[in-house]
Amino acid sequence: MKRSFIREILEAIDEETISFAGGLPNSLLFPVDDLKLSANNILKKRDVWQYSLSNGIKSLRKKIAKQYCNEGFETSAENILITTGSQQALYILARYFQNKSIVLEDPSYLGAINTFKLNDLKMKSAPLENDGIKLKAFEKAYEKSKLSYLIPDFQNPSTRTYSKYKREEVAKIVEKNKGLLIEDSPYTELYFKEKNKSISSLIPDNSFHLGSFSKTLCPSLRIGWIRANKKLIDELLVIKESIDLHSCGLSQHLLNEYLKDDKKYQNHLNILRKYYKEKSEYFCEQLDKYLPEFIYEKPKGGMFVYGEFKDVDSFELLNKCMKKKVVFVPGCEFYVKNKNKNEIRFNFTNSSLEDITKGIKIIAEALKS
Amino acid sequence: MKRSFIREILEAIDEETISFAGGLPNSLLFPVDDLKLSANNILKKRDVWQYSLSNGIKSLRKKIAKQYCNEGFETSAENILITTGSQQALYILARYFQNKSIVLEDPSYLGAINTFKLNDLKMKSAPLENDGIKLKAFEKAYEKSKLSYLIPDFQNPSTRTYSKYKREEVAKIVEKNKGLLIEDSPYTELYFKEKNKSISSLIPDNSFHLGSFSKTLCPSLRIGWIRANKKLIDELLVIKESIDLHSCGLSQHLLNEYLKDDKKYQNHLNILRKYYKEKSEYFCEQLDKYLPEFIYEKPKGGMFVYGEFKDVDSFELLNKCMKKKVVFVPGCEFYVKNKNKNEIRFNFTNSSLEDITKGIKIIAEALKS
Repeated sequence: MKRSFIREILEAIDEETISFAGGLPNSLLFPVDDLKLSANNILKKRDVWQYSLSNGIKSLRKKIAKQYCNEGFETSAENILITTGSQQALYILARYFQNKSIVLEDPSYLGAINTFKLNDLKMKSAPLENDGIKLKAFEKAYEKSKLSYLIPDFQNPSTRTYSKYKREEVAKIVEKNKGLLIEDSPYTELYFKEKNKSISSLIPDNSFHLGSFSKTLCPSLRIGWIRANKKLIDELLVIKESIDLHSCGLSQHLLNEYLKDDKKYQNHLNILRKYYKEKSEYFCEQLDKYLPEFIYEKPKGGMFVYGEFKDVDSFELLNKCMKKKVVFVPGCEFYVKNKNKNEIRFNFTNSSLEDITKGIKIIAEALKS
Repeated sequence: MKRSFIREILEAIDEETISFAGGLPNSLLFPVDDLKLSANNILKKRDVWQYSLSNGIKSLRKKIAKQYCNEGFETSAENILITTGSQQALYILARYFQNKSIVLEDPSYLGAINTFKLNDLKMKSAPLENDGIKLKAFEKAYEKSKLSYLIPDFQNPSTRTYSKYKREEVAKIVEKNKGLLIEDSPYTELYFKEKNKSISSLIPDNSFHLGSFSKTLCPSLRIGWIRANKKLIDELLVIKESIDLHSCGLSQHLLNEYLKDDKKYQNHLNILRKYYKEKSEYFCEQLDKYLPEFIYEKPKGGMFVYGEFKDVDSFELLNKCMKKKVVFVPGCEFYVKNKNKNEIRFNFTNSSLEDITKGIKIIAEALKS
């Protein structure tokens, strides 16, 4: 087993490096004042500092459940398991399905691939098209495995989003096979135009829907969740408890206090969407201007721009750029099967406009050298 | 797999129940004002809310390393892996040693036993005597497994503490066999009279020393650590990263700020020791007065009183007491092998003096009924 390539890059670089590598939210947008206000309301309460329930504090689970209900996806607190970030949700599920087969999009999220490997899951993949996974290939693989891991909204790394049609077809395939779906949704709220309906809402008893506050609020709290039917949640709880007893109580109480005023959170999300939309547009403009050789589709949400050069080894390019203090992630890191050496994932959320221009110019120079 | 019996009891009881069950620190002793002050110093810093390093923020690791150095146990930040509570340290190690054999004290910590089971470790045990593990039985089992999990200070559940002689002998056996030791030390700082020297300090390259702020400061932060040589830490880091990327950043920054003034923390520990010592003495007095049938040794630190009745099924007694809203943990829950039905673990830290008397009286009544 090796470590995550991205986290190794992130730990190796210094403060002067322009990083288009990690999926870091922009720290200037953390609602620090509101979070501090919320903190001050709870820090003197003694139960905030004590041990708490393994599945998460109930008032927070209720608030997360209400978000689902608001969108017509019936959910109660008992359907929610609080996890230490979405990463832990993936680990718990990987442990639960240890040694089983699982169908992934190719490419897919690196943290999931590594966790599935660590837990000896046999990974099958189906290609990801513009409007979602290739259905025939998916169905063929799914009939055998009856388990799949998908990221239908602004997928990491490809930024692709499933059409309504493909969502419904995937749901039908899962149901027909009496199988299960792990639907990972860290970027769902970061849409530029409109929110998509989850596949899980079409198959509530056959799905694990994974959510997180890491991309929408702040990652440091390490709070994510799994939404599933109660029977499945109870089974996952045994693993969760064995891993860390419960997720950080301070984070949970703080989030619970912050979310009491739902308007505040919705306003924050609107600011985030507007700002990230503008930033993605700026990033694309600069790409078109200085790196016209890079072929990509404009993202409709999320945190990344994904594309390829016609004939450039992206690892070689990365090595050149690292010397000039610019980093990004070569696409082949994300593939289970078809490793394309020309692809690159850029993160656009975390750099200033100035650094975006500077970084892309440096990449353009490196490309020519 | 089943859940932890103790956590199930804790989740089932209501606020009126007197609980001698969990290992909960007394929330009245959380240094809430100081923690709030520390929080206010950091909450406006944006990196407090961002993703951070998988092995933990460096300044906190340095401070933990310094605590070891102060006691003559040479340690640097690279020897420390921050974990989401000690429980995660146990999980990471159990995952690392999956399928291997391991020697435990009989009885031992329930959370460790369950985690070892989940990761298919083959558990061997050696009896725990007054001054530590029975050496002959330990050596015989260890020669085969070359891996052991021990809690030398104020052991959970037995409250027993290893003599200097047995610490040295265990270290010799580990070294002779070129094996490894997992030394769990959540209660080490909660001594009433004097601090013991860890076994790990005698075999720095053959040991994982586990520490935690859950019992000494507050559990909600979920911050523990593993101290080991760098090569081992690097190997564990792959698993840690797969489980939750990193432990709560807010908790780490808060702790780092709080620990800047080491005097403050040392004062807090002194208060804790004094208060817990008095509470344990009161608990024992009340036991002697109302439950003279209960045979036990007075604890010299930690959070528990452990002992047995001559001829009472402690599960039956628990069932009777639960109806009268008093709970404790039957000793047989903690055994790998020799399940003694007469034993009981009482927690003394979490109840008021009034509730201690009331609870013990109720147990005495239930015993007669």
